[in-house]
Amino acid sequence: MFICSSTPTHSPLSQEASRAGKHVFCEKPVDLDIAKIRQTLQVVQESGVKYQVGFNRRFDHNFAAVKRLLDEGTVGKVHMVRITSRDPSPPSAAYAASSGGLFTDMVVHDFDMARFMTGSEVTEVYAAASVNIDPEIGRAGDYDTAAITLKFENGAIAVIDVSRQAVYGYDQRLEVFGEKGAVSMGNDTLSTAVISSAAGVLSEKPKHFFLERYMQAFTEEKLQFFDAIRHDSIPPVGGYDGLISVVIAAAALTSVKENRPVRISEINNRYDLDEGVRG
Amino acid sequence: MFICSSTPTHSPLSQEASRAGKHVFCEKPVDLDIAKIRQTLQVVQESGVKYQVGFNRRFDHNFAAVKRLLDEGTVGKVHMVRITSRDPSPPSAAYAASSGGLFTDMVVHDFDMARFMTGSEVTEVYAAASVNIDPEIGRAGDYDTAAITLKFENGAIAVIDVSRQAVYGYDQRLEVFGEKGAVSMGNDTLSTAVISSAAGVLSEKPKHFFLERYMQAFTEEKLQFFDAIRHDSIPPVGGYDGLISVVIAAAALTSVKENRPVRISEINNRYDLDEGVRG
Amino acid sequence: MFICSSTPTHSPLSQEASRAGKHVFCEKPVDLDIAKIRQTLQVVQESGVKYQVGFNRRFDHNFAAVKRLLDEGTVGKVHMVRITSRDPSPPSAAYAASSGGLFTDMVVHDFDMARFMTGSEVTEVYAAASVNIDPEIGRAGDYDTAAITLKFENGAIAVIDVSRQAVYGYDQRLEVFGEKGAVSMGNDTLSTAVISSAAGVLSEKPKHFFLERYMQAFTEEKLQFFDAIRHDSIPPVGGYDGLISVVIAAAALTSVKENRPVRISEINNRYDLDEGVRG
Amino acid sequence: MFICSSTPTHSPLSQEASRAGKHVFCEKPVDLDIAKIRQTLQVVQESGVKYQVGFNRRFDHNFAAVKRLLDEGTVGKVHMVRITSRDPSPPSAAYAASSGGLFTDMVVHDFDMARFMTGSEVTEVYAAASVNIDPEIGRAGDYDTAAITLKFENGAIAVIDVSRQAVYGYDQRLEVFGEKGAVSMGNDTLSTAVISSAAGVLSEKPKHFFLERYMQAFTEEKLQFFDAIRHDSIPPVGGYDGLISVVIAAAALTSVKENRPVRISEINNRYDLDEGVRG
Repeated sequence: MFICSSTPTHSPLSQEASRAGKHVFCEKPVDLDIAKIRQTLQVVQESGVKYQVGFNRRFDHNFAAVKRLLDEGTVGKVHMVRITSRDPSPPSAAYAASSGGLFTDMVVHDFDMARFMTGSEVTEVYAAASVNIDPEIGRAGDYDTAAITLKFENGAIAVIDVSRQAVYGYDQRLEVFGEKGAVSMGNDTLSTAVISSAAGVLSEKPKHFFLERYMQAFTEEKLQFFDAIRHDSIPPVGGYDGLISVVIAAAALTSVKENRPVRISEINNRYDLDEGVRG
Repeated sequence: MFICSSTPTHSPLSQEASRAGKHVFCEKPVDLDIAKIRQTLQVVQESGVKYQVGFNRRFDHNFAAVKRLLDEGTVGKVHMVRITSRDPSPPSAAYAASSGGLFTDMVVHDFDMARFMTGSEVTEVYAAASVNIDPEIGRAGDYDTAAITLKFENGAIAVIDVSRQAVYGYDQRLEVFGEKGAVSMGNDTLSTAVISSAAGVLSEKPKHFFLERYMQAFTEEKLQFFDAIRHDSIPPVGGYDGLISVVIAAAALTSVKENRPVRISEINNRYDLDEGVRG
Repeated sequence: MFICSSTPTHSPLSQEASRAGKHVFCEKPVDLDIAKIRQTLQVVQESGVKYQVGFNRRFDHNFAAVKRLLDEGTVGKVHMVRITSRDPSPPSAAYAASSGGLFTDMVVHDFDMARFMTGSEVTEVYAAASVNIDPEIGRAGDYDTAAITLKFENGAIAVIDVSRQAVYGYDQRLEVFGEKGAVSMGNDTLSTAVISSAAGVLSEKPKHFFLERYMQAFTEEKLQFFDAIRHDSIPPVGGYDGLISVVIAAAALTSVKENRPVRISEINNRYDLDEGVRG
Repeated sequence: MFICSSTPTHSPLSQEASRAGKHVFCEKPVDLDIAKIRQTLQVVQESGVKYQVGFNRRFDHNFAAVKRLLDEGTVGKVHMVRITSRDPSPPSAAYAASSGGLFTDMVVHDFDMARFMTGSEVTEVYAAASVNIDPEIGRAGDYDTAAITLKFENGAIAVIDVSRQAVYGYDQRLEVFGEKGAVSMGNDTLSTAVISSAAGVLSEKPKHFFLERYMQAFTEEKLQFFDAIRHDSIPPVGGYDGLISVVIAAAALTSVKENRPVRISEINNRYDLDEGVRG
């Protein structure tokens, strides 16, 4: 079953489908409420169905190519991950309010990506955030610009900078740096056409919209979900991935509000999550 | 009707389908024999059906983006067109022999592209060719490497260099240069991943195979064929485009064999083609 | 007078030369000790001589081109500055110990660059740091890898990631992002040569060494120092720039040691610096 | 002695200096008249002095990097050389007239470069040329746009396209393609700055003027001339290089005027040049 409806319906539908014995592909986030995610995952786990969460970027040809190179040992031990993630234009203030905010709605993808690339778990989060684009977003208590630093169990550090608005398009870049060098990836464009004129050398902007940019990835994640069902294997993105990325988002928000680094264990304890969940 | 069978069947099937009142999409080349192409086009013309020839590259997002910029006047008057066209690996000697040779089988695409970009007709061809890759190809009287110069009615000059084998992949590049500057396009890659290491900065090779590279273009040309039928409009690539590109190929071969520039009118006269065909 | 000797001599020579009425160009840092810098700057100020500090990167053609574009309003209001700064290889443990450490010795350039680009002053610093490259550096109480977040008076945020070792060369990149888009700059290479082979598309690494990379910049900063003397104008990089960058470095080190964001005013107060110094 | 005066003085000054036993560095071309070049080279040869001709591009960091890679066997056997050579703006009609024309004045550099890269001698030339930029140039019997095909003794083919005017700057690119792949080089820019905006991604134009672009090369060729004197070795660019490039230019002009491929031996015979000169 594919759950691609609005966020508040994800948890109840996931539980209902699991209890009915149906394999579930659920769009991110599973829920804005960590306690509800936890509860849903318990229902899913007891039901024994396959459960995949829609972190589509892991399946994008660019991100996947970087991951493959890392798995082959191209950079050796990872020292630093840099992610830039900018939307072409901000959501409406109404959406922003109901979406769970910048960290849970948007940066959650980048938190998942940082975990995917390092192959390690986040231990601590520091975030600086500001309102540059839409004062309405600020009045709703949210942010539209942020820089987040993540520390990982394996010693890696990740730096993520995000914005709700890049006038030049959908900007998704990543670099992984380590002992043997760096692997990076840039944006896709609609064509490789380049204009050389008296004004300079002009090439295309990044593809503008996430549907256009990640079309292949949306298809690929579904194919891999079917594969997991067919071969009775573990889906490539599981319930824990869905949960922990929202936990990291909660830590980031706390970090901004209280202006201090926040440990993941602090959020986990608050919601009575333990290591058992990770399995 | 889609005629995508082997080349010798293109002409008879085209005629048969036209007579039966069926619109025809025919893979290039219509025929290796210019007289037969002419005859087929006459049958098609009398039948009144839509007839589109499969010059897929015109529909590729990169070539199409350049064409769009030219149509917008980006480079002004065109002075020079440069095309590089290299296959990843040579065909078998058997295929090479039956395919009509380097110019009719492979460079025919580039002749069509040069006409498409300049929006003008070729008046004269000079070609230098050699055998570098496979001596078998030479023994069969064909070539695997060539540089061709085309002169156009509107004063533009085009330079095309081709090879049957580029070890780094399918290499399709084009540049159009004129009074206001240049527009160029490069290859597509499977990803934007880049490795920085002690050995240098390594990015991906061009996509390797024409099916992979031109998948979108193959779809797009069919969609535009359907559009031409639906709206009763002129198909974007017609019978004359299919004919004249083979005429240019014949001129190029004559140029190599006799080591002199060859005028298109010379070939046209040989086959009793006149300007009326162009309409 | 040019003071390019070892760091401990910068302060005494600066004072001596100033008192003798000589204009002074002093390599960074003025001193590792903030109190001594302050004292030296007071002597310089009283003497009335020109005093320029050697932040050479401001004069580099790439950084200067970005700055020029920002001054022209290319990105509008600045939201985010991203700086990557990696040395090709780490210093000896002995040098690292005497140099003042990662922040005061190396990142001090990037702190100055972030101020230069934003045209604003830092209010707060958070830094995460680790030892990945040389355990000796760790034993000496220093770090070789760090990610630093700076908050600025004008609301901009800067993210700096640094490493003492990039096996692919001297890596100095910067991006400034704002309401109207982004301006970025990359590395210089020894040539534009590119190899396309079965292994991929290989281009040159960044220039390897700072003398090679910043040769032009070293010349340019001296020329502008001479200009300031000749025209009796204010040198482009002054004593305050030399002081505040070391203050930011001290804040960054405190941030790592105490795992918390540190306000610049906290360091200023510790050394009894006040706003008067800025003038 | 450095002969950098106007072209008509090159031959007499070269002879005078040689007879006086002075080593000579002579700007290209040695003369517009092939017979005079031949005569001058005989005087030089008899005098035993060092004689270097100013083909500066061989010493440019980009061209030199490609040559080094070829010498290392990077592309294996060379199949095709592509050179694009465009000046930022045309000379005055007066200069054009006295300069010897497009081929002898400008393309002579590219003929030398093609020989340098292939390490082989040209056997035949075909050229197509037109007047696009300045009708005055046409009225003076010269051209401002051309495409030239060169055949080499070793089987390589070179394609050169040139223009007297590229509005986007001084455009000097080269690609050498062979059995193991390709090596190419592009233009230098004043900075690596890139602007991403709603209009696209804009990078810098090529450096605009040959003095700016080839400053390093002009220095380097002089240093190597001094080295040849100091070590009593053969100068890197000799009299024969100066002679044969003008012979190729004469063949190219004949090709355009008579619209046919012209063999180098035809020009050599006309001026009674024989293989002995080459040594």
